[in-house]
Amino acid sequence: MTGHTPAIDSRLLAALQRVVGKEQVATAAEERLSYAYDGSGREHSPAAVVFPENCAQIAAILRLAGEYQVPVIPRGAGTGMCGGAVATRGGIMLALSRMDQILEIDADNQVAVVQPGVITADLQRAVQHHGLYYPPDPASRAFCTIGGNVACGAGGPAAVKYGVTRDYVLGLKAVLANGDIIHTGVRTAKGVVGYDLTRLLVGSEGTLAVIGEITLRLVPAPTTRQTMLLLCRDLQQATGLVSAILRRLTPATLEYLDRTALNLVADRLPAGLMEHALSQIGQSPAAMLLLELDGNPEEVAGQTRQLNEFLQDQPGVLVYAAADREEAEQLWAARRAVSPAAFKLRPHKISDDIVVPRSRIPELVAAAEQLAADTGLPIFTFGHAGDGNIHVNIMLDRDDPREAGAAEGVRAAIQQRTLALGGTLSGEHGVGISKAAAITAELDQAGLELMKKLKRLFDPGNILNPGKIFPDQDV
Amino acid sequence: MTGHTPAIDSRLLAALQRVVGKEQVATAAEERLSYAYDGSGREHSPAAVVFPENCAQIAAILRLAGEYQVPVIPRGAGTGMCGGAVATRGGIMLALSRMDQILEIDADNQVAVVQPGVITADLQRAVQHHGLYYPPDPASRAFCTIGGNVACGAGGPAAVKYGVTRDYVLGLKAVLANGDIIHTGVRTAKGVVGYDLTRLLVGSEGTLAVIGEITLRLVPAPTTRQTMLLLCRDLQQATGLVSAILRRLTPATLEYLDRTALNLVADRLPAGLMEHALSQIGQSPAAMLLLELDGNPEEVAGQTRQLNEFLQDQPGVLVYAAADREEAEQLWAARRAVSPAAFKLRPHKISDDIVVPRSRIPELVAAAEQLAADTGLPIFTFGHAGDGNIHVNIMLDRDDPREAGAAEGVRAAIQQRTLALGGTLSGEHGVGISKAAAITAELDQAGLELMKKLKRLFDPGNILNPGKIFPDQDV
Repeated sequence: MTGHTPAIDSRLLAALQRVVGKEQVATAAEERLSYAYDGSGREHSPAAVVFPENCAQIAAILRLAGEYQVPVIPRGAGTGMCGGAVATRGGIMLALSRMDQILEIDADNQVAVVQPGVITADLQRAVQHHGLYYPPDPASRAFCTIGGNVACGAGGPAAVKYGVTRDYVLGLKAVLANGDIIHTGVRTAKGVVGYDLTRLLVGSEGTLAVIGEITLRLVPAPTTRQTMLLLCRDLQQATGLVSAILRRLTPATLEYLDRTALNLVADRLPAGLMEHALSQIGQSPAAMLLLELDGNPEEVAGQTRQLNEFLQDQPGVLVYAAADREEAEQLWAARRAVSPAAFKLRPHKISDDIVVPRSRIPELVAAAEQLAADTGLPIFTFGHAGDGNIHVNIMLDRDDPREAGAAEGVRAAIQQRTLALGGTLSGEHGVGISKAAAITAELDQAGLELMKKLKRLFDPGNILNPGKIFPDQDV
Repeated sequence: MTGHTPAIDSRLLAALQRVVGKEQVATAAEERLSYAYDGSGREHSPAAVVFPENCAQIAAILRLAGEYQVPVIPRGAGTGMCGGAVATRGGIMLALSRMDQILEIDADNQVAVVQPGVITADLQRAVQHHGLYYPPDPASRAFCTIGGNVACGAGGPAAVKYGVTRDYVLGLKAVLANGDIIHTGVRTAKGVVGYDLTRLLVGSEGTLAVIGEITLRLVPAPTTRQTMLLLCRDLQQATGLVSAILRRLTPATLEYLDRTALNLVADRLPAGLMEHALSQIGQSPAAMLLLELDGNPEEVAGQTRQLNEFLQDQPGVLVYAAADREEAEQLWAARRAVSPAAFKLRPHKISDDIVVPRSRIPELVAAAEQLAADTGLPIFTFGHAGDGNIHVNIMLDRDDPREAGAAEGVRAAIQQRTLALGGTLSGEHGVGISKAAAITAELDQAGLELMKKLKRLFDPGNILNPGKIFPDQDV
């Protein structure tokens, strides 16, 4: 249910209509409701949805919002997982969907300049025509926008080799709360003039400025891929293999499933594979690694050789190499089926996106298994073993008060354990609303105070996505 | 000559001695003079040199400096090129040479934790024992410190494949101007909780905080290297090749020398190579590319194949592959000989470290050649063709007033041209004092004002390396 939203001031409404045109301001309840939620499932209607088409319009909107002291919530595609794009205090939903142009692909310098509303997968396809590759690959890349990726610091499986969104942002055109337009960074790989405002804005979740244009670094497209699956005796063995593999080579992706996750999708693996693993390992496999090698043909051949040389000395592992892209796709489909299959266990899910140093994954998962045993709730983990980014899934029936309470306790215990292991509470989803309470546990007091001061410096009127990231009502 | 430095207040001196011990505070004129300069050749004595051994001592020193309103200049090895570590206003030189411990090498997670005074090459050697590699390679890496590299955002030739220092900094322990100690970032590859204070401090040249501990990302060490040299008809052809090569493969380094630079070191190339190039190209080569491929053996073989397949269709290029590491070293020695050999042309040099999109290198170099013809000053350029980072060298006799004046005019014209080509005035050296005047030309007014506000937020008393980065007397 959406909370109460005060109606927009009629003078502000008229002024907004003058800026973007009457048809680009939506105030009907059903239109506002369409922009009330994001991937977190939380929901609160804005007072109006405004669709700017350039930075000058964004600047004018922010100046008006400052004048009328109304919140502005920038929004890409609303695929964020933490409520960062929910209008918790009403105000103006700044929908950037009309700013969806790829302004330039400079193949010689391997740079793209895009507007924030470009769909991530569309950019990936467009640069591929130039033999280039934009590696960041959030799971929602078919729908999510580059602007949202930049605002949240989105990641994805390719991070282990290629890094995350922030590693590809060379420069930004951004609109400050007072309507000033700044250009940060450069369009070259190097550049050290002044402070790194680019990276300060990346991951700031719309709380410091509105991102209006993005200059991205591209890389040459790999020509060859090889997917391999490893079934392991247990997770301890699997994560040991991860560290050992990464000392020898750098796969493009290196994912794992724990015992529960593997069992959820075992029937989607190639026929007979689990049985073959049982006979070879001497027990039913309790963890799976899925990795993809990429590069030129010789490079992939070399990585495959290194991997096989190493694995042949490892007892209790079944190695399965996809014969072709079709088989590779089947393996990846099994990996993607984990999340939907989880609802076989319980009707609801609480999901967290923590990171621990990858050698500590077994400790974290052991803690999760213990919590599952203690509470009776099914808990499974899977994710990016190569970079320690784990998706912890607590399955529950929200209508059962005992389960609902226990699940929150499990979540808190997992977060605490994550920090004790030297980890962080969000690897790629961001803070938004749903992790705002946790931020104080992770950051030291002086650092948190400094961040709040930065927020006040950039946005003294607290109009830019207020109530996000920081736990307090007002920064 | 060093300017006037007011003596240190005796009560402050006594307080500093209580913090670090009497023998760790130097005030004798000759000791202060040893810490008066950096690689820029500029010089100004501090009032005292203080050698802390931990962050708590740094914090106490900063609190005292705030109380007595005395500047504090953090200093690594003093190899910076822009005067960033020169005590232009006297004050306390904070020499971090005693904080030189590698605190941890975590091979499983490919992370190192170091104090700021660790010599870059020492870290590289230490991690190599674990089969790991710390790629950033500033030319001074045998002497410079990681802390200085982080403070200046140092680069190096390996940037084209591996990125620069900032791409390896996962987290920091830093001391704020008020003595608060903050921990930024994480020790994992991913992490998006709160604003990116890590990257805000990287490259801030000691003006926002003192960096007391650094968590660095490492990568697996490549096992194979292949060095190749290309002699080209002209620079236009050479930079065209650079863009084409980088669409096919990513060498670890991709350096170029222009005509003048090539002629300076032609006699150091393998015997007969220039003559062979003359007969094959049909003219004396006027540009050189030097590139190194690295990876596992198959990867390097694959890259070599891709490169040769491409180059065999390119007329007018002589390709020379180093037969072994010894020959490769000879080629790199020729490249390194450019800077010292330049003094054959004139006794003095003005050097700038600009970046342009790499496809624009010929335009920049054509402008430099025209300026050389107009002024009669020898000008040559060389540098990192792969990332467009060019070292422009204007040779002159400073004792000749006409040459001294002309050289400053050339420098200004090159900077102007760099910005017109979409470039930046510093790729890896930083701003310091010597580029502070230029920063206003590169940054827009709103961005520059924001940076100054950040400086005031972090350091309201303006004690941290005052007078650096920003052109005004006082921020």
